[in-house]
Amino acid sequence: MATNSNKEEPRFDPNFTQNVINAMGPKTSPRMREVMTSLIQHLHDFAREIELTVDEWAEGVALMNWAGQMSNDRRNEGQLVTDVVGLESLVDEITYKKASEATDYATQSAILGPFFRHDHPTREKGSTITFNTPEDAQVVYMYGVVTDAKTKKPLAGATIDVWQASTNGLYEQQDEKQVDHNLRGKFVTDENGEYAWYCIRPTPYPIPFDGPAGKLLQVLDRHPYRPAHIHLIVMLDGYKPITTQIFDKDSKYLDDDSVFAVKDSLVVEFTERKGDSEAKYELKYDISLAPNNDTVAEGTLLAGSGAISNP
Amino acid sequence: MATNSNKEEPRFDPNFTQNVINAMGPKTSPRMREVMTSLIQHLHDFAREIELTVDEWAEGVALMNWAGQMSNDRRNEGQLVTDVVGLESLVDEITYKKASEATDYATQSAILGPFFRHDHPTREKGSTITFNTPEDAQVVYMYGVVTDAKTKKPLAGATIDVWQASTNGLYEQQDEKQVDHNLRGKFVTDENGEYAWYCIRPTPYPIPFDGPAGKLLQVLDRHPYRPAHIHLIVMLDGYKPITTQIFDKDSKYLDDDSVFAVKDSLVVEFTERKGDSEAKYELKYDISLAPNNDTVAEGTLLAGSGAISNP
Repeated sequence: MATNSNKEEPRFDPNFTQNVINAMGPKTSPRMREVMTSLIQHLHDFAREIELTVDEWAEGVALMNWAGQMSNDRRNEGQLVTDVVGLESLVDEITYKKASEATDYATQSAILGPFFRHDHPTREKGSTITFNTPEDAQVVYMYGVVTDAKTKKPLAGATIDVWQASTNGLYEQQDEKQVDHNLRGKFVTDENGEYAWYCIRPTPYPIPFDGPAGKLLQVLDRHPYRPAHIHLIVMLDGYKPITTQIFDKDSKYLDDDSVFAVKDSLVVEFTERKGDSEAKYELKYDISLAPNNDTVAEGTLLAGSGAISNP
Repeated sequence: MATNSNKEEPRFDPNFTQNVINAMGPKTSPRMREVMTSLIQHLHDFAREIELTVDEWAEGVALMNWAGQMSNDRRNEGQLVTDVVGLESLVDEITYKKASEATDYATQSAILGPFFRHDHPTREKGSTITFNTPEDAQVVYMYGVVTDAKTKKPLAGATIDVWQASTNGLYEQQDEKQVDHNLRGKFVTDENGEYAWYCIRPTPYPIPFDGPAGKLLQVLDRHPYRPAHIHLIVMLDGYKPITTQIFDKDSKYLDDDSVFAVKDSLVVEFTERKGDSEAKYELKYDISLAPNNDTVAEGTLLAGSGAISNP
């Protein structure tokens, strides 16, 4: 569609994009200039390449506004819209690639997702996070050791946040029938770098389908399911924090996760557990942390107002 | 930053983007597939090119949600965010290029802007649209003829919607001190294709600066001003409708319109008017309409639910 029989004359104003880029003033931060130069170029190239019409652009704007109107403290629909086109997984890959360039052995990361809470209760090593275990749930004893990616030595005092959905596909904040903080908690590694808890074997679930992200999946003829996974954040002073998800090797949707978060190295195998009346399965999962030599860059593109982070 | 010393091995997963594109199912419409293939490719290329971090992506998501939360019946902040990066002007150029490819002489279009109303009262030829004329306003007699772009013959019965801001930079729906429908109206060309009205000479004004579009302008070190302009929509059955803005040749900001809508062919000259106690200036502006041979494509990328157009 974008071909032009007269090659002497560009089909659209050839100076337009550069004019928009050049409008940035001298006080624009170098990083913001770099980001916006690339964003404007790609957005314009996209529009010209497929000859986006005013009506189609207006549909996109309406979708964007709809996402914002649907978002609140418990739901981030704007995030979900970018998730279903793979953007969160991609920036996650980029970020951890940048952060880990000095070391090669840190556990790979995966996206945070919209159901994390900042107030996980700290729980005893070996205790449970499942307080409303449904009949169709299978309890798992999960354990392992956190080590230094370079020295391989165990790391005491590392914190591990864990959270997962119940077998109905809902996280506790989405589900009135689960007690507060069901299937989530914070654990601390002992003097041997070891952690352990009881949780449930995760099951696949659909991401929310009633908003613009669901609409997008629908018109793209895609399903909303995520493969069975457990969320983890591992942190220790002096080490790069890891936000990750681990995926059940036997789950459906490993090859077509609706938010594209699966990496081979994050697929784990649950095995049968013997001699424990509390758990039918077990999962040994070791985690290595890379020493933090660099200052971690904060997101400050739009710094100068609290309005962005807390609209 | 994105350079890689080891050219054998790509810096990021080389299959990721194609995997996301391939996730589209067979029932995706051909146009949606075309649009999303290009959008996903450009979004991912953008993220890789500038190595977008998770924190920066989260700032962008928050900006997008903020735009939706600020939008309502009287304000479209999502639109404004895309306007300040030139996207509405670009899709306008693309759309009218596509629509007018059969004829070369139709009046050029410009963006609609967020202040149009669908219920303009029809007014008599030669009457006024200024009912609360401020002291610093200069009244203009604007007139001209609407013709067929091919035959050059005058077109009777064409409707012209006109709207403009007052000298304080506000459209009537933004300003309690202006009467309903001040500085807007709908006119119909007479048997000679002629139209005429009294309006005010337009003045520059800033776009709303208190939301994400304003925030973006601020961090890009750009001003929010638009050059002085009058909005017009011209329609007649059997002809392609035109949405346009005309710009005062003597206005500031012609070269740095905050939404990049100025085209040379839309810059007009107001001249002194003699022998009319009602108006100090006059503007003769003729408009040519291209016959409509094609079916106009509607925006139907997300068709199948009323939720997009009316969230």
